[in-house]
Amino acid sequence: MTLAVGVVGAGIMGADHARTLAGAISGATLAGIADPDAARAGQVAAGVDGCRAYADPVELIADVDAVVVASPDDTHEAYTLACLQAGRPVLCEKPLATTAEAALRLVRAEEATGRPLVQVGFMRRFDPGYRELKRLLDADELGGVLLVHCVHRNGSAPATFGAEQLLTSSATHEIDAARWLLGEEVTEVTVHQPRSSGEAPAGVGDPLFVVLRTASGALVDVEVFVNARYGYDVRCEVVGERGTASLVPPAPVAVRRDGAERLAIPADWRSRFAAAYRHELQTWVDGVLAGEVRGPTAWDGYVATAVAEACIASLRTGASVDVSLAG
Amino acid sequence: MTLAVGVVGAGIMGADHARTLAGAISGATLAGIADPDAARAGQVAAGVDGCRAYADPVELIADVDAVVVASPDDTHEAYTLACLQAGRPVLCEKPLATTAEAALRLVRAEEATGRPLVQVGFMRRFDPGYRELKRLLDADELGGVLLVHCVHRNGSAPATFGAEQLLTSSATHEIDAARWLLGEEVTEVTVHQPRSSGEAPAGVGDPLFVVLRTASGALVDVEVFVNARYGYDVRCEVVGERGTASLVPPAPVAVRRDGAERLAIPADWRSRFAAAYRHELQTWVDGVLAGEVRGPTAWDGYVATAVAEACIASLRTGASVDVSLAG
Amino acid sequence: MTLAVGVVGAGIMGADHARTLAGAISGATLAGIADPDAARAGQVAAGVDGCRAYADPVELIADVDAVVVASPDDTHEAYTLACLQAGRPVLCEKPLATTAEAALRLVRAEEATGRPLVQVGFMRRFDPGYRELKRLLDADELGGVLLVHCVHRNGSAPATFGAEQLLTSSATHEIDAARWLLGEEVTEVTVHQPRSSGEAPAGVGDPLFVVLRTASGALVDVEVFVNARYGYDVRCEVVGERGTASLVPPAPVAVRRDGAERLAIPADWRSRFAAAYRHELQTWVDGVLAGEVRGPTAWDGYVATAVAEACIASLRTGASVDVSLAG
Amino acid sequence: MTLAVGVVGAGIMGADHARTLAGAISGATLAGIADPDAARAGQVAAGVDGCRAYADPVELIADVDAVVVASPDDTHEAYTLACLQAGRPVLCEKPLATTAEAALRLVRAEEATGRPLVQVGFMRRFDPGYRELKRLLDADELGGVLLVHCVHRNGSAPATFGAEQLLTSSATHEIDAARWLLGEEVTEVTVHQPRSSGEAPAGVGDPLFVVLRTASGALVDVEVFVNARYGYDVRCEVVGERGTASLVPPAPVAVRRDGAERLAIPADWRSRFAAAYRHELQTWVDGVLAGEVRGPTAWDGYVATAVAEACIASLRTGASVDVSLAG
Repeated sequence: MTLAVGVVGAGIMGADHARTLAGAISGATLAGIADPDAARAGQVAAGVDGCRAYADPVELIADVDAVVVASPDDTHEAYTLACLQAGRPVLCEKPLATTAEAALRLVRAEEATGRPLVQVGFMRRFDPGYRELKRLLDADELGGVLLVHCVHRNGSAPATFGAEQLLTSSATHEIDAARWLLGEEVTEVTVHQPRSSGEAPAGVGDPLFVVLRTASGALVDVEVFVNARYGYDVRCEVVGERGTASLVPPAPVAVRRDGAERLAIPADWRSRFAAAYRHELQTWVDGVLAGEVRGPTAWDGYVATAVAEACIASLRTGASVDVSLAG
Repeated sequence: MTLAVGVVGAGIMGADHARTLAGAISGATLAGIADPDAARAGQVAAGVDGCRAYADPVELIADVDAVVVASPDDTHEAYTLACLQAGRPVLCEKPLATTAEAALRLVRAEEATGRPLVQVGFMRRFDPGYRELKRLLDADELGGVLLVHCVHRNGSAPATFGAEQLLTSSATHEIDAARWLLGEEVTEVTVHQPRSSGEAPAGVGDPLFVVLRTASGALVDVEVFVNARYGYDVRCEVVGERGTASLVPPAPVAVRRDGAERLAIPADWRSRFAAAYRHELQTWVDGVLAGEVRGPTAWDGYVATAVAEACIASLRTGASVDVSLAG
Repeated sequence: MTLAVGVVGAGIMGADHARTLAGAISGATLAGIADPDAARAGQVAAGVDGCRAYADPVELIADVDAVVVASPDDTHEAYTLACLQAGRPVLCEKPLATTAEAALRLVRAEEATGRPLVQVGFMRRFDPGYRELKRLLDADELGGVLLVHCVHRNGSAPATFGAEQLLTSSATHEIDAARWLLGEEVTEVTVHQPRSSGEAPAGVGDPLFVVLRTASGALVDVEVFVNARYGYDVRCEVVGERGTASLVPPAPVAVRRDGAERLAIPADWRSRFAAAYRHELQTWVDGVLAGEVRGPTAWDGYVATAVAEACIASLRTGASVDVSLAG
Repeated sequence: MTLAVGVVGAGIMGADHARTLAGAISGATLAGIADPDAARAGQVAAGVDGCRAYADPVELIADVDAVVVASPDDTHEAYTLACLQAGRPVLCEKPLATTAEAALRLVRAEEATGRPLVQVGFMRRFDPGYRELKRLLDADELGGVLLVHCVHRNGSAPATFGAEQLLTSSATHEIDAARWLLGEEVTEVTVHQPRSSGEAPAGVGDPLFVVLRTASGALVDVEVFVNARYGYDVRCEVVGERGTASLVPPAPVAVRRDGAERLAIPADWRSRFAAAYRHELQTWVDGVLAGEVRGPTAWDGYVATAVAEACIASLRTGASVDVSLAG
C-alpha cells in the first residue's frame, strides 16, 4: 500500500518535508499541500505529479491518508486536533503546542481516539550522531551519565524571536534529546542569563544558558544562541563515569586554502539534519502503515513543553524551578 | 508511476540494494530477486511484501520494469546483455564486464537498442564527499588540478582476490572517480609494487601503488590495499594550484575512553557508502522513469576496465603503459 | 648572568620543574632542590651537575638566587613568605595559599618589600592554545565574549581530594584563565552538583559544575571532574558575538587500527602542558633577570583563591554567591 | 660548562637559530654571529648580551666552542670543513653539501679528525609528530611498513628555486625521514612529473611526485610542491600491515566564523617546526658537551644527497634509477 500524505504549511520546513516525501521516501506519495498563501502551496505542488494545492488545511486533512503539520507554531494544536478528529495519523513539527496545557489536551484527545496517531517532529532522534550516542549509552560503554553539555546555535533568528522562544522552540530539542538519551525525566531547571549579544535584536535575551537536572541527578547544560552569526551549529557531549562521547557534525570535505584548513558549517538546520529528516519521515510512514507510532509521541511533545515552561519561570525569577508533570 | 524493480544476485551487495529499494526509495518497489541459491533469494524476498524470489535471472528480467545486476563479476556481461535484449533499463554493479572488450560489446549492444538503458554502479559519484569535491572543482575553487592522492583500503578480501582484481575490481572506483572529477581521460598508467603484506594470502600482491596520468598532465596516485586489517578506508585529496580538498570520512561521534579519542572506521563499504548507495538508486529510478541515464554510463564502465587492463600490463612489465580507447 | 635556581619540593611537580630548569632553560641552572624526604631530593640532584640536595627549604632559599616552590599546597604560604623575607624572586605553584586571607597576606608582604618578587604557577597563560585564544580576543576576532565553556578532567585524584579541592586546586586554573582571557573580574558564582561518579571515592562530590559571572555579564561554565578515568583532558571554548574559538589539545599523530582512528589523550598534565611549563619557567627566569614579574602575580593568586572560596560557599548553600575582593 | 656557540649566516634560518640559542637553550650562549652582510649580523647580535658580530665566518669559528652553519647551501661544505679543521663541533643545516661527492668528502674529513663532530640539520627527527611515528614503528604497533605517503608543500619559493632544488633541498627532508623511520636504505627512485602549476615561475617543474623503494621493498611516495600558495604543509602517513599512523600538524585552536571551522596553516616552516628546532639545538648542545653526535650524522647528510641525485637522474630520463652509495 502507498500512503497518500498531505503537508500542512508550505514555508521553509513544510516545503522541505514535501520535497522529501515526494522524492525520497518509500511507501508514500505527496498527495497535497495546504497553505493560506495559495501561491506558495501551488509552487510546491507544481513540481510533483499528482500533488494538489489547498488553501484550507482542513480540506486537505479530509482528502489524504496521513498528515505532516509544518505550519506556524501557534497553529500546531488546531491542525493536530483536526487530524485526530478525522482519524488521520499526523507528524506534527515541534512544538506540539505553544503551552503545556494545550499539548496535554492533545495527549488526551489522542487517548480518546483509542489509537496511536501522533508523532512529534523531534528529528534529532533520527540523526546518525544522536543515534550513535543513544547506542553507546544503551550498551553502557561510557558508564552512568553524569553530565551532558549541549550547544544549540542558529546563525540568525527572526526579529520577533524572543527569549521565551529560545526556550520553547529551540531548547525543546535538547530537552527531548536529553530525556530520550538518558531515559529519565528532567526534575529541575535553572536558567542563567548572560548579557545579550549586540548582534541580537534589541531587547531580546540571547544567548541563554540552561541547566537541567534529571531524576538520577545528572546535569544537562544547554547554550541556546539563535543569533550566533557564523552558522548553524549543534553540539552534544555526554559525560559518563568512564568516558565521553560527542557529536561530530558532518562535513564531508576539508578544504585547505588561504592559510587555513576549513570545514564548512551549514547556514541552517536543513542541511545539517537532512539525513535525520529523511529517516524521520521514512520511520513515520513505515509506522503509519503498521498502525504504530515509532517516534516521539504526543506525551513527549507535552513533556518538552512543560520543561520549557519551567525554564521560562526560572528565567523570570532567576531561581531554580521544579518541573511537575501531569499524572 | 511506480517502477517494479528486480535485483539479480542475493549476495551481500544484492541483498543490500534490495533492502534499500524495498524500504528507502521513492517511486519504486522491489518486485523480485533472483539467485541460483534459492534459499538466499527467498530470504530476501520473504521480508518484502509483493517481492518474488527467482532462481533464473532471465525469468526475473522478463517480469520486471527495470533491473539491478549485483551478481558475481563474471556474470555481469551476460545479465546486462539479457536486460538490453529485453529492453529493460539496468543498473549494473561495477565492473560492467571483466574485460574491456566485453564491456565494449555492451556499449555497442546498448547503442543498437537506440535507447539509453545502462547505468554502472560507480556509487562514489553519489557520495556527499565526492560530490562536494566535484562541486569545488567545477567552481574552480582550488585552481587547476595537479595531483590527486587516493587510498582504497579494505579490511580483508577473499583469498581468491589476486593482484589483478585489486586493479579491475578495486582501483576501478578510483579510475572512474578521477575521470569524473577531472573531466578528462587517463592516458598513461604506472603500477609500482611494494613487498606484499604478510597479512595478505600467500602469492597475492597486496598492496599496489598506481600512478595515472591524465590528458592535461595531472597525476592521480592510488594505494590499493585489500587486506589492510583495520577497516574499510577510502581517502581522496585533490591538489589544485591554489588549494586542496580532502574527503572527511563520516564518523558521527567521537568517543574518549581508555586514553584515546576514537572515531570509528567501518568494517566494510556498505556503511561507509550507505548514503551514496541510496542516492545512486534514487537517481537511477528517477532517471529510468524519465527515460534517461543520470549516472555513469556503459561507456564509463568500458573506460574504467580499459584503464584497469593497462594497469595490469604495467604490473606485469614494470613499465608505464599508454591507455588506448576505442573510437 | 646565569640565575642559580632552587626548587622547593621534589614530588611530581617539583621534579618536573627541576628537570626542565636543569636541561631546557636558557639563563638558569638548577642549583639545589629541597625536600624533607632526603632520598627524593637526592635522586633529583644526582642527575644534575652542581645541584645540591637540601632537607631544609629555608637553607636552600638562603643559598640560591631565585626559588620555585612546588611543595604541598599547605606549605606554599610559608615558603613564599620565606622567599620574600630573604628577598628572593619566587615562582610559587598554584594555589598561592590555601585561603584567600593567607594569599592576601602574601600580597601585602610582597608590597612591603617594595619589589615585584612573586609569580604564581598558572601555567595555562603560557600554553600555545590559551595564548592563541587570548590573541584572538585581544584582536577582537570573535566579537565581545558572551560565554566560555570549560572542561577540566583528571584521570584520577588522590582519595583525599575532596569537593573543596576540586574548587581550590582544580577550578582555580579556569578561574585564572577566565580572568586573564576576558580581562575582567568574576563577580558571582554558582556551583551545581550532579550525582557523584561511582568511580570517585565514597563521599567525594565529583564532578562539579561551576558557573561564573563576570563584571561585563559573560558566563563561564566549568566542569571539574577529577576521577574521569579515561585521561587528562582540558577544553575551553570561548563564544563571542560573531564566532567561537576552542582549544585543540595537542596529539601529534593519528593512529588507525582495529576499527578506529585514535588520538592519544595523556594520562596527566605534565605532557599536556609540557610546552607551557617550559615557557612559564623561561619567562619567569627572563623576568627575574630583568627585575620584573612577567606572569601571574600574587594578586592573581589571591583573586583565584577568593573566587574559589565563593564557590565553596555556593556548593554548601546551593545558592549563587557574590565575590568580594580586598580593596 | 656553558658552550659558546657561533652561528654562520644571519638570514632567516640563521637568525632563527640564533634567537633560539640565545633565549631558549640550556647550557649554551650565543657568542657570535657571522654574515658577509655586516648589518644583518649586527642586528642579530645587538639583541643579545655578549654576542659579537663577524663579517668573516672563519674568524668566528676560531673564537667559539661550537658552530651552527646556516649560510647559503653552496657554502655549507666550506664552512663545515673549516669547523673540522678547527676541531669545532658543527651543526650544519641541510643539505650538508650540494653534491653527494662533496658530502662524502666531509664524511672522510670528519673521519680523519678521529672525533664525531658533524650533525646535519634534519630537524624532523626532533619533531614530536615524527618522533611518535618512530616510537610506534619501533614498538611494532603497526606491523611491517609497506608504504609511506608524504606531502611537502611550501606556500612559495624563490623564483630561482628550480626542479632540481625541489629534490636536493626539499625532498631531502623526506628522504632522511624515511631512512630514519624505516631503519633501512633507499635502493631505487622514480620521479613522476605532472604538468607544472601556473602559480610556479615559468620553466620551473613544480610540483614533482617521487617514489622511493627501500631495501625491504617498502614504497615511499613524496609530493614536493613549493609554490602551493595556501601555506606550509607537511604530511606523512606510514602504512603498516595492521594499521597506519599519520602526522597531525599542530594547530592549537579551532575558530568557527563565517560559515566554517578553521585550523590555521602556517606560512612557513619556522612556526610549524619551532619545537623541533629547539629540541634539535638542545640535543646538539647536550651532545657536544658530552663529546657525542646525537642526531643525523655527516653520513646521513651524504646519503640524503646521494638519493636526491638519483632522483635528478630519474627526472631527466623518466626512468627508475638505482641508488648506489659509497662503501
